[in-house]
Amino acid sequence: MTSNRRFDILAMGNAIVDVISSETPDFLTSRSIPHGSMRLIDAVEAEALYAAMAPGRQISGGSAANTVAGAAGMGARTAFVGRVADDQLGEFFTHDIRAAGVHFATAPATGGRPTGRCLILVTPDGERTMNTYLGACQELDATDLDAAMVADAGILYLEGYLWDPAAPRAAMQAAIKVAREAGNKVAFTLSDVFCVTGHRADFRDLLSQHVDIMFGNENEVKSLYETDDLDAAMAQLATQACITVVTRSEKGAVVIGGGQHTQVPGEKVARVVDTTGAGDLFAGGFLAGLVAGRPLPDCARMGCIAAAEVISHFGARAEADLAKLVAGKLGNV
Amino acid sequence: MTSNRRFDILAMGNAIVDVISSETPDFLTSRSIPHGSMRLIDAVEAEALYAAMAPGRQISGGSAANTVAGAAGMGARTAFVGRVADDQLGEFFTHDIRAAGVHFATAPATGGRPTGRCLILVTPDGERTMNTYLGACQELDATDLDAAMVADAGILYLEGYLWDPAAPRAAMQAAIKVAREAGNKVAFTLSDVFCVTGHRADFRDLLSQHVDIMFGNENEVKSLYETDDLDAAMAQLATQACITVVTRSEKGAVVIGGGQHTQVPGEKVARVVDTTGAGDLFAGGFLAGLVAGRPLPDCARMGCIAAAEVISHFGARAEADLAKLVAGKLGNV
Repeated sequence: MTSNRRFDILAMGNAIVDVISSETPDFLTSRSIPHGSMRLIDAVEAEALYAAMAPGRQISGGSAANTVAGAAGMGARTAFVGRVADDQLGEFFTHDIRAAGVHFATAPATGGRPTGRCLILVTPDGERTMNTYLGACQELDATDLDAAMVADAGILYLEGYLWDPAAPRAAMQAAIKVAREAGNKVAFTLSDVFCVTGHRADFRDLLSQHVDIMFGNENEVKSLYETDDLDAAMAQLATQACITVVTRSEKGAVVIGGGQHTQVPGEKVARVVDTTGAGDLFAGGFLAGLVAGRPLPDCARMGCIAAAEVISHFGARAEADLAKLVAGKLGNV
Repeated sequence: MTSNRRFDILAMGNAIVDVISSETPDFLTSRSIPHGSMRLIDAVEAEALYAAMAPGRQISGGSAANTVAGAAGMGARTAFVGRVADDQLGEFFTHDIRAAGVHFATAPATGGRPTGRCLILVTPDGERTMNTYLGACQELDATDLDAAMVADAGILYLEGYLWDPAAPRAAMQAAIKVAREAGNKVAFTLSDVFCVTGHRADFRDLLSQHVDIMFGNENEVKSLYETDDLDAAMAQLATQACITVVTRSEKGAVVIGGGQHTQVPGEKVARVVDTTGAGDLFAGGFLAGLVAGRPLPDCARMGCIAAAEVISHFGARAEADLAKLVAGKLGNV
């Protein structure tokens, strides 16, 4: 669908390095951190939590960044826009996303807040609890936007997390305008219930007017329509013109659009080590399928294959050859 | 043996963060880097190699630091002396070693070279090829030495890697003097064939006069005596007053001393993912056994158990509970 563009997918998101430790459930309880949650923390709390954490692994992260890194691993031509600082963490993020084959040219911030990081506490059940210090991420603004590059990408992909701080939100709104005027697709992920709660009206507006493909998990779409009934939420989604993909953890995903609900099964995972990045990699696989011209159910299968890979090890960047995994299960395009 | 001291083990070594990527054998060949080697590189080469590397995982490392982190996980009271810089990598190293339960109070260097790092290329066979930029590690000197702390540690543990730069070598020589005057033990690892080749006379002198426990692998002890015959090298080691432990990868280890050669078998490993840290964790297990008063063959078994754990995942710091692993196989002390 996008072969005449320089990029298949251009993503905007938080440029974050994950610091991942293995912790007991008691560690979460003792600090009153809800198991499985994602929350934003300030520099002071980040320092205090880090001091208390077990030894860590630093692995590049950031939701949309994980998505395009994964999509690149499945053959898509991708770019990323997000802000790191001019520091060692920023260099690490920059190296990794470029080494994953993603074009990344946003200038680092200088003299301000350091590169963002997410302190991820992984419990023995494989569930991740995320504590994000946004740092330089928040300094992304509309002046960073290369309109020609956005126009030259078949799909603009945006993460709901980045809707929270004002300047990046304005940059994303500007990007949506450029993308739509260029006749490109816009894809959006709801990211987290706390994002939906904070920006429900905006997200509904995006869904009904500006977005072609929306990703969300069960809790996020229920929150979007303020219901506890998943079927009711999905019925609402079915009234929208866009395609919605609802991810359902081990139960796979449902693609809603064109008057149809298509359920695809989840992939078997021998041992769930760390669920960080499951949704991100699902989106990466789905979009990679889309740009390769695969039918929607195959796109969702590709999402499930990529998500299954990333939860089988620590970190939200794929370790295996995703293109080979997909070819083994679905065949080459 | 050391219960009246503040620390069971005080280690001096390079304070390094590992940057670990998965690479093909062709990547090594194309850059003329010998598979399985360890070499020192300068800042320019470090930058060029990093730019070419696949996405990485950053995990704290450093040979002796890995050893004391492992020993701490098996119940030993440990301390580490080594130099990081006042930068994000240095903070990361500092956090991790303290979180592992190791006392670490060496002041970071300011305004000079950045924290040292080791670019580790792991091939599909699990073998690691190490490219070390020492950075701030080399700025450790004798003025950093807290003589009272060295005197108050039952075992002084030194890595051969740190014998290479002059200032840290002088610091280690001063520490040996303090330890011996206090009636403490001195343990030393040969580290790598390149260290033995560069400092053979020094290492033989250490072995015959200043060291109570020496660690080396087959290639290192053969290089020490300039022979291709392992039995000949071990016969030479048997003439020394100290205990020597020769590690033999999957074949386990041989403890030489007191007129005896004691062979212990290696631990079975389901899949070798990354051999980085095998020797370091062996030494950590061995020394933890020693300070717990276990007999030498049990100490060597503890070394093999710790080494087997660390090669089953990426990174040279243990992920499992080593004390529990040891108790499961050898029982509590």
